[in-house]
Amino acid sequence: MAVYTLVAAEQIAELLTRYDVGTLVSVKGIAEGIENSNYLIETTQDRFILTLYEKRVDERDLPFFLAMLDHLAERGAPVPPVIKARNGTQVQTLADRPACLIKFLQGVSPGEPSVAQARAAGAALAGLHEALADFQLKRQNSLSLGGWHDLAAKCGDSLDAIEPGLGDLVTSELDCLKAHWPDGLPRSAIHADLFADNVLMIGNEVTGIIDFYFACTDIRAYDLAVTHTAWSFSENGSEFDAGVSKALIVGYSSTTPLSGDERTALPILARGASLRFLLTRAWDWLNTPADALVTRKDPLAFRRRLDFYKRAGTDIFAA
Amino acid sequence: MAVYTLVAAEQIAELLTRYDVGTLVSVKGIAEGIENSNYLIETTQDRFILTLYEKRVDERDLPFFLAMLDHLAERGAPVPPVIKARNGTQVQTLADRPACLIKFLQGVSPGEPSVAQARAAGAALAGLHEALADFQLKRQNSLSLGGWHDLAAKCGDSLDAIEPGLGDLVTSELDCLKAHWPDGLPRSAIHADLFADNVLMIGNEVTGIIDFYFACTDIRAYDLAVTHTAWSFSENGSEFDAGVSKALIVGYSSTTPLSGDERTALPILARGASLRFLLTRAWDWLNTPADALVTRKDPLAFRRRLDFYKRAGTDIFAA
Repeated sequence: MAVYTLVAAEQIAELLTRYDVGTLVSVKGIAEGIENSNYLIETTQDRFILTLYEKRVDERDLPFFLAMLDHLAERGAPVPPVIKARNGTQVQTLADRPACLIKFLQGVSPGEPSVAQARAAGAALAGLHEALADFQLKRQNSLSLGGWHDLAAKCGDSLDAIEPGLGDLVTSELDCLKAHWPDGLPRSAIHADLFADNVLMIGNEVTGIIDFYFACTDIRAYDLAVTHTAWSFSENGSEFDAGVSKALIVGYSSTTPLSGDERTALPILARGASLRFLLTRAWDWLNTPADALVTRKDPLAFRRRLDFYKRAGTDIFAA
Repeated sequence: MAVYTLVAAEQIAELLTRYDVGTLVSVKGIAEGIENSNYLIETTQDRFILTLYEKRVDERDLPFFLAMLDHLAERGAPVPPVIKARNGTQVQTLADRPACLIKFLQGVSPGEPSVAQARAAGAALAGLHEALADFQLKRQNSLSLGGWHDLAAKCGDSLDAIEPGLGDLVTSELDCLKAHWPDGLPRSAIHADLFADNVLMIGNEVTGIIDFYFACTDIRAYDLAVTHTAWSFSENGSEFDAGVSKALIVGYSSTTPLSGDERTALPILARGASLRFLLTRAWDWLNTPADALVTRKDPLAFRRRLDFYKRAGTDIFAA
């Protein structure tokens, strides 16, 4: 995690004149989120996060992400409102990059979520889905079955350089997921990346959900599956936390009951979620120098989760 | 600039229980300063910077740096007080590193200092020196003549890989500085690294002086020379800003008049300051992979400053 684009205080002070937010009092480059540059900014009026979008976020997707945040903020969901400039726009240009000023939210991301925190996160995720039921914009999930297939093809034989046999495992898993991927489950805009890093909490209360840059239109229960694979294991995937797992499901169901079909589909959705992170991490692993600015994350942490879900069946998703 | 040591929120929350500062509300890893890890922390009571000292700061030097900050803060200088834990100590251990909790100061570092900002910075530097007149602890400057000699020897022939002829230039400059380095000028604890990055300002007022990790006991006018070489040029050293240069001297002199001997010595001190950054940057340049976590800074930006000072003589230091 790092700041990729260095911006002088004078440039930020100038940017702020386009908004009605007061004048600059403090600015710190912060190490946060995916590969964007983020600054924590204090003005005479309030605090904000200034995000400069680096190449990983396609500028054409910004209207979807920002409309989604607006939609959620208007409905009282704990997401940071995107500030409008005096001319009504939300996207400015700074240092040749699209830039947004976003309200700062208090809260800390749990490093090792407790059962109570997992229950709150599950409930907050269901709350997002409820609030998004009438959100009209669509964005295809480029990291679902088709995207995984393309990513696996691009990695090719190199997968076996990460671990012998990984290529075959991915191929057979892709075949299985294609054959069993559920159809007809409730869909909406989803977060699609709700790791604990992206949840701000004070005590057991969710004060913020952030980093919507993988958000897309997809199966709601898949979002729960992503959250489950992100939260219910030790970081390296070798230990399953049954308490946290159950709390996520209970928390979600307490806000939005899961249908029988959704519950039946969760094991296969969770295998898909595990494969998604296995593949994106494998691609990054193979294409990131070991000493680069970004810390490489171990793809095998999600191979272990995948193995777990293959063994575990449906019981772990009972509320 | 990056965060080197990742610390979970729970570890920081636990650390805060050792202090009487309230409980954790927000934490952001910030990209700041030399190679330490810094977190901007908000509690229910106040905001702080948590610094974890990485290998570049010798733990044995911390008592000097912290006593210097205490001394300055007690005398009303704009430096951040170091918070004491309930047991009275200032250095804790976190993630196997020495760690200090330091009060957060508002203000932004000027990217392109104005004349008025340079005048304020010069005055603030003189204010530091005045406040440090009765500071008793000593720390030898490891980056003065002897240190430069050692660093040049360690770089050896590699200097010519940065620019042909650089090795000879350094050798002859070292000889000249040894022959003419002033003796008997007023000394005290000095900051020794007062780049604009290390000065926080709101408008034209200095609200904070930070990053004391090169502080040492040395010639006071040398500290002004370091500041002069840091502030009075375009980043690459090719353009001299006569207005900023004069404002630094005027600002300093308005608080602490420079003696005739100090003024006479400034050209040679400024050449020394330029060589200091030339050599440390050259060493880092030769020992940092081009794609590493730290951005390599161009040593030749200070070769150009050195050339300027050799040509300029004493006139530029007239108030």
